[in-house]
Amino acid sequence: MRNEQPSKVIFDTDPGIDDAMAILFAHLSPQIDLVGITSVFGNASIEKTTNNACYLRDRFDLNCGVYRGAAQPLYLPLGAAPTFVHGHDGLGDTGQDIPEVSRQPDAIQFIIETIRTNPGEITIVAVGRMTNLATALTIAPDIAALTKRVVIMGGVTGLAGIGGNVTPVAEANIYGDPHAADIIMRAAWDLTMVGLDVTMKTLISPERMQVLAEKAGEIGQFIYEVSRYYQSFYQGRTGSESFPVHDALALVYLVNPALFQTHRGAIRVLTEGDGLGQTVFASADRTYPEAAWTEERPHQSVCLGVDSESAMDLYQDTMLRSES
Amino acid sequence: MRNEQPSKVIFDTDPGIDDAMAILFAHLSPQIDLVGITSVFGNASIEKTTNNACYLRDRFDLNCGVYRGAAQPLYLPLGAAPTFVHGHDGLGDTGQDIPEVSRQPDAIQFIIETIRTNPGEITIVAVGRMTNLATALTIAPDIAALTKRVVIMGGVTGLAGIGGNVTPVAEANIYGDPHAADIIMRAAWDLTMVGLDVTMKTLISPERMQVLAEKAGEIGQFIYEVSRYYQSFYQGRTGSESFPVHDALALVYLVNPALFQTHRGAIRVLTEGDGLGQTVFASADRTYPEAAWTEERPHQSVCLGVDSESAMDLYQDTMLRSES
Repeated sequence: MRNEQPSKVIFDTDPGIDDAMAILFAHLSPQIDLVGITSVFGNASIEKTTNNACYLRDRFDLNCGVYRGAAQPLYLPLGAAPTFVHGHDGLGDTGQDIPEVSRQPDAIQFIIETIRTNPGEITIVAVGRMTNLATALTIAPDIAALTKRVVIMGGVTGLAGIGGNVTPVAEANIYGDPHAADIIMRAAWDLTMVGLDVTMKTLISPERMQVLAEKAGEIGQFIYEVSRYYQSFYQGRTGSESFPVHDALALVYLVNPALFQTHRGAIRVLTEGDGLGQTVFASADRTYPEAAWTEERPHQSVCLGVDSESAMDLYQDTMLRSES
Repeated sequence: MRNEQPSKVIFDTDPGIDDAMAILFAHLSPQIDLVGITSVFGNASIEKTTNNACYLRDRFDLNCGVYRGAAQPLYLPLGAAPTFVHGHDGLGDTGQDIPEVSRQPDAIQFIIETIRTNPGEITIVAVGRMTNLATALTIAPDIAALTKRVVIMGGVTGLAGIGGNVTPVAEANIYGDPHAADIIMRAAWDLTMVGLDVTMKTLISPERMQVLAEKAGEIGQFIYEVSRYYQSFYQGRTGSESFPVHDALALVYLVNPALFQTHRGAIRVLTEGDGLGQTVFASADRTYPEAAWTEERPHQSVCLGVDSESAMDLYQDTMLRSES
């Protein structure tokens, strides 16, 4: 059963190849009303992710603003961009003619003002480092209670048999700014974590990509083209021609949460040591004898299971709307 | 297929109810030659665990020495004993008449000397805090190369869907001395971790306990009696009358490793922060982009799957030898 009313979504993103696949899904989904795109450093520098977001908006008539966000993590040094996953331009190095934008309005202010002027109506979907959201919460803690819900792509509990992608326990979006991630996990809002527990089990097949390339118009051709680099990275690692769509799965969850199994509990992010960036999930089902774990922390939701084929059907069907 | 030659085993233990169930299994197994029991703090104080080990030896004619080990962790403060699991006497508070022993020979020296005089022949099975083993390695690093193998009950990877029992990510034996545990994980010896990944899936049923109480003589009656407290703790937590035998499973692994699925990789123990005591498993199957995880560390084995019913059959059949 899908939500009937379109969700008003601020999409916080670092395009990024899977980010681009997600942005175009948000654009085409009748269940999503994209009210703004906020950029953040991550898959590439803040300059490149902002340029890429503007390029996507202008080329595909996205009809929403792009707002420039954080250039570096809250506390730890900026790490190297994962050019081996997203290419040097952040969009798979296919020679797209991406203009440099000089200035964009501020993402943090946009997030705060949009939530305050639409109380209870805005959903934030965040698929990069959580630095923009954490900064907005620090400046304006009142937005936690005014936000409808938060869905993130990031983290991994390990409880579904999947480990981290940057270390054995850490996922890249959380590892890239663990302090920011811990701030959003402990906030008193309705947050759902769509992490590697489910995204690494939801792969798009070469057959589906071929359908999109042939039948989803310019958008389909574009995502086929830019995803070759990304597909090649994953094939080198897993041997499979199918690859995870990661960021788009957070939007699929928003559109049809019934495709997912979720669990409730507190989520903490490790901010030091060999566990840096791990999202530790303490299920609400049980208690622990150690005092540190009795501290009150709002419960959030984590996705531990997914109907992968139905999720990919929804992605594909939505993308095919580009020609309708 | 079982090993034909009995393994010469030093059993490092903190009895402890499941420790007692394991010690008596070692005594009865024709595949195990118990050359010594070394005590360590943990389930109760070092005084009580040493008293309990001596009591078991004397009451059941174990025909091996008991050696007194560490009273506290290497570096962190001594935590409270888990009296809610093992009772105040460490053996389920059933009123056993346990004498206080005044002095026992030193466990660390016994471990070092036994390994040096039997090069390549000694298996260490450690089912408590790893403090004795770590101290022995610090004093005599040469024993790593002289030890046949090490099997521990402790830790949890999370990759089999099971979390920690002291925190969401930490198991009690590792949490109780994480520095010691990290020392034994990084040593260049052949170590297998039998952790909560498998022990929480291998439960002894009330029917099996009844068989042991009725048909395994004084030993069977004893373990039935002392395990009531322990069973009650687990039933309160899980609702099931079946309970995990934990420590004995490390010995079952030694006797018949074919009942287990193991994976190879590096194991690190977190020694600080909210992840304290977590055993992070980095599978040998893959690499990680973050430099810290490329550091060389010997690969060990972790058990991620088990044929639980066959493991419990082996436990039960061995215990029933007490009347033969």
